[in-house]
Amino acid sequence: MLEVGGKTFQSRLFTGTGKFSSNSQMEEALLASGSELVTVALKRVDMENPEEDILNYLKHEHLQLLPNTSGVRDAKEAVFAAQLAREAMETDLLKLEIHPDPKYLLPDPIETLKATEELAKLGFKVFPYIHADPVLCKKLEEAGAVAVMPLGAPIGSNKGLKTMDFLEIIIEQSNVPVVVDAGLGAPSHAAHAMELGADAVLVNTAIAAAADPVAMAKAFKMAVEAGRMAYEAKLAPVQQHAVASSPLTSFLDQL
Amino acid sequence: MLEVGGKTFQSRLFTGTGKFSSNSQMEEALLASGSELVTVALKRVDMENPEEDILNYLKHEHLQLLPNTSGVRDAKEAVFAAQLAREAMETDLLKLEIHPDPKYLLPDPIETLKATEELAKLGFKVFPYIHADPVLCKKLEEAGAVAVMPLGAPIGSNKGLKTMDFLEIIIEQSNVPVVVDAGLGAPSHAAHAMELGADAVLVNTAIAAAADPVAMAKAFKMAVEAGRMAYEAKLAPVQQHAVASSPLTSFLDQL
Amino acid sequence: MLEVGGKTFQSRLFTGTGKFSSNSQMEEALLASGSELVTVALKRVDMENPEEDILNYLKHEHLQLLPNTSGVRDAKEAVFAAQLAREAMETDLLKLEIHPDPKYLLPDPIETLKATEELAKLGFKVFPYIHADPVLCKKLEEAGAVAVMPLGAPIGSNKGLKTMDFLEIIIEQSNVPVVVDAGLGAPSHAAHAMELGADAVLVNTAIAAAADPVAMAKAFKMAVEAGRMAYEAKLAPVQQHAVASSPLTSFLDQL
Amino acid sequence: MLEVGGKTFQSRLFTGTGKFSSNSQMEEALLASGSELVTVALKRVDMENPEEDILNYLKHEHLQLLPNTSGVRDAKEAVFAAQLAREAMETDLLKLEIHPDPKYLLPDPIETLKATEELAKLGFKVFPYIHADPVLCKKLEEAGAVAVMPLGAPIGSNKGLKTMDFLEIIIEQSNVPVVVDAGLGAPSHAAHAMELGADAVLVNTAIAAAADPVAMAKAFKMAVEAGRMAYEAKLAPVQQHAVASSPLTSFLDQL
Repeated sequence: MLEVGGKTFQSRLFTGTGKFSSNSQMEEALLASGSELVTVALKRVDMENPEEDILNYLKHEHLQLLPNTSGVRDAKEAVFAAQLAREAMETDLLKLEIHPDPKYLLPDPIETLKATEELAKLGFKVFPYIHADPVLCKKLEEAGAVAVMPLGAPIGSNKGLKTMDFLEIIIEQSNVPVVVDAGLGAPSHAAHAMELGADAVLVNTAIAAAADPVAMAKAFKMAVEAGRMAYEAKLAPVQQHAVASSPLTSFLDQL
Repeated sequence: MLEVGGKTFQSRLFTGTGKFSSNSQMEEALLASGSELVTVALKRVDMENPEEDILNYLKHEHLQLLPNTSGVRDAKEAVFAAQLAREAMETDLLKLEIHPDPKYLLPDPIETLKATEELAKLGFKVFPYIHADPVLCKKLEEAGAVAVMPLGAPIGSNKGLKTMDFLEIIIEQSNVPVVVDAGLGAPSHAAHAMELGADAVLVNTAIAAAADPVAMAKAFKMAVEAGRMAYEAKLAPVQQHAVASSPLTSFLDQL
Repeated sequence: MLEVGGKTFQSRLFTGTGKFSSNSQMEEALLASGSELVTVALKRVDMENPEEDILNYLKHEHLQLLPNTSGVRDAKEAVFAAQLAREAMETDLLKLEIHPDPKYLLPDPIETLKATEELAKLGFKVFPYIHADPVLCKKLEEAGAVAVMPLGAPIGSNKGLKTMDFLEIIIEQSNVPVVVDAGLGAPSHAAHAMELGADAVLVNTAIAAAADPVAMAKAFKMAVEAGRMAYEAKLAPVQQHAVASSPLTSFLDQL
Repeated sequence: MLEVGGKTFQSRLFTGTGKFSSNSQMEEALLASGSELVTVALKRVDMENPEEDILNYLKHEHLQLLPNTSGVRDAKEAVFAAQLAREAMETDLLKLEIHPDPKYLLPDPIETLKATEELAKLGFKVFPYIHADPVLCKKLEEAGAVAVMPLGAPIGSNKGLKTMDFLEIIIEQSNVPVVVDAGLGAPSHAAHAMELGADAVLVNTAIAAAADPVAMAKAFKMAVEAGRMAYEAKLAPVQQHAVASSPLTSFLDQL
């Protein structure tokens, strides 16, 4: 069982809500994923047309909302957006995303740390989305983040664990849960992150942009469980030389 | 549902029986894996002490035996061993393994093709274990193999899909099921093979040498199912540039 | 010709001075490398025993010193060390290294940006050593850095370009020279960095810890030149399908 | 100095002659490469128009021709083509290429071994082009091949050393020179192959299809020399933990 931000989760697959072809498809995929923590961009909440609103599709008892600040460009905007989000979505949890660059959407380390400090003081449970930078992760932890969310590869790239060497260091050093976010394009990527010892993963594009998002959501569910189980069951070590699965003897000589 | 050698299988995880610390641990792990096809080295069958025999632990209705010729050094020995195996294990299915080299246990392409031709004529359903060589795979198919079993990495190395570029070609070209064998060291590796379109995988060392083989078997079970489901649901494409999960606008400007 | 910090360099191989078995071996290797920019830790300068001092071995007209702040833990210490270094080594050039973590020696993004701002105002030509974080690189450039020095892998690991996907983005976006620093363990790694479009590389451990540091220095020299030349000559694109080098016809039919 | 097939070579860069935009461009690039062994497809030799013939551009004292059998589909055709080539190009050296598949041009292990046996008996110095299959390489050596030419990736793909794990085993086990052929798309790939201990590399597409083939040829020349030199100077080992280039002490405390 994963504990983070004062909540407990059976599922270690966190999910996003962007890019689905419809709200009902999104709802169906999220239910299939077994996810209990779902991130929603504040800017996507339609406060004026509540009937069409995305939040209507997320009203399930097991679903905890994780508002995110996608679209803000600095700490000041982030703090403002966070406060709006807390009110709109009635939760202290916050995924902090500050990415000034519109091409790769990579996170800003300086503004993210600054906003984390301020938001923690304001009582938010901050999940910062950041580069896989081990030193930054420790600083965010010290600033009061309840988890860290290092990226695996640029958002939406589906490239997998391109930051693996650094994720291993982050996982080794962290005192708060490590959630690998962004870039996970296939269930095998998610399983790999879990095998390394990540506490959870966040997946959005790979599910929403699959030909069959509902089936893909289920595939990620199983892969995350498989990866976690393998982490707990401890993988056999990598060997340079082959090691036969069965004892090698020229047994026919004896016949 | 997978069809191969005239049999049908719900599970796409094939398993091996070597390296477990006891026969009862092996039995428990194989049951947890959900595997329906289990390979057994002829040389490990103890025809003189039937009570201690490994086969006693494999007597489950859903388990199909796949005898293997591990330990033979050429086609002639393989054909002889195959005939003994057919008698001892009462099946025409045969995993053909010819690896003269004791250090890396890599398969011999020439003797394997020769033995496949002969064994197919003798009515065997041959599953040859071979290098991930696309031309050789086509020749084996033409020689009557019911499946091909290219390696992912040297046996027991747990290195994963080191032959990926060639497995993709093999899968694209094959008219018989492709079973990735050897080198799969983690559930994520197995999921990856399935995502590429492999029909099944064979895992032994990674389960048997895990700290908890029974849990690891279950992890592989889920990973294989996840990978297959993802293959069928079609993965989203890899992108060079980031693609935001949520529409990017400087929404705060509008507040 | 590379221009950086108001200097011009024929060689795009920057070098370090740590870990050599003797000062004279270091001198010989640096001369063999053709390097024109050599980084020296201020803490290694022995101001009390000038005859034994490392600087005596670096007195060659073509060698420009690049003092570094290795050993400092924050911006304040870095600024102090920089001023000592400017005096001791009589140059405005400064490699800024702030790594509080003694295990992996990874750089601190926050303190590095802060120190860069201050040092640029004090007239230093700052070369900050940092994680391969594209957003941070842009901020350092805006703060007045004359170059950015993203890491390829943890210092001394010899793992190569583990940050490749992010180096490509940094190179694409940077208006100042990009020098790949740390982790380059083989000439092929250095060539690869140059093929991607890096302006230069910095190598230390891979030369100093080779069995033959002088020969390895020469190998890196050639590899860097090869990589730069290939970048300028533009690599042929990667192809999914094979493309024959010679026209494929069943020419024998015509004989 | 490399010895193979009774000849000695200063250069460990072997080259091909396909895909250049003109014969004179080819000649210029080959001269820039420093290569002393150049492969030519028999089918490209124009016996009826000797003035236009490719061989006219290869008449340099330091250039040894290596005829190849590209275009043949089996051992029988290969033996016939080899005999024509020996006559036309006046050399016993022969690059044996048998690739029945027109899409990926991957070599046929069975026919290649068969042809090698026959050609060795006929006095040819056979360089077989094959998959990176360690067992097959040993068989070819036993059949009389003077070198083995395992592929790095499919011909013309420029993907680099996709077969690295197997090349390492081949190099470890071989008693004849190992020449990595096919797939090397950048000087860094060639340097990497040499660092692993390959005796030589063969490059064609990456030079011929570069924007500037002459400069690219020179880049490969330097990279191959760099890689060989690094192999001989012995690379420093890969480390899991960072190792500082300079001794780490909080030296400022002492000031």
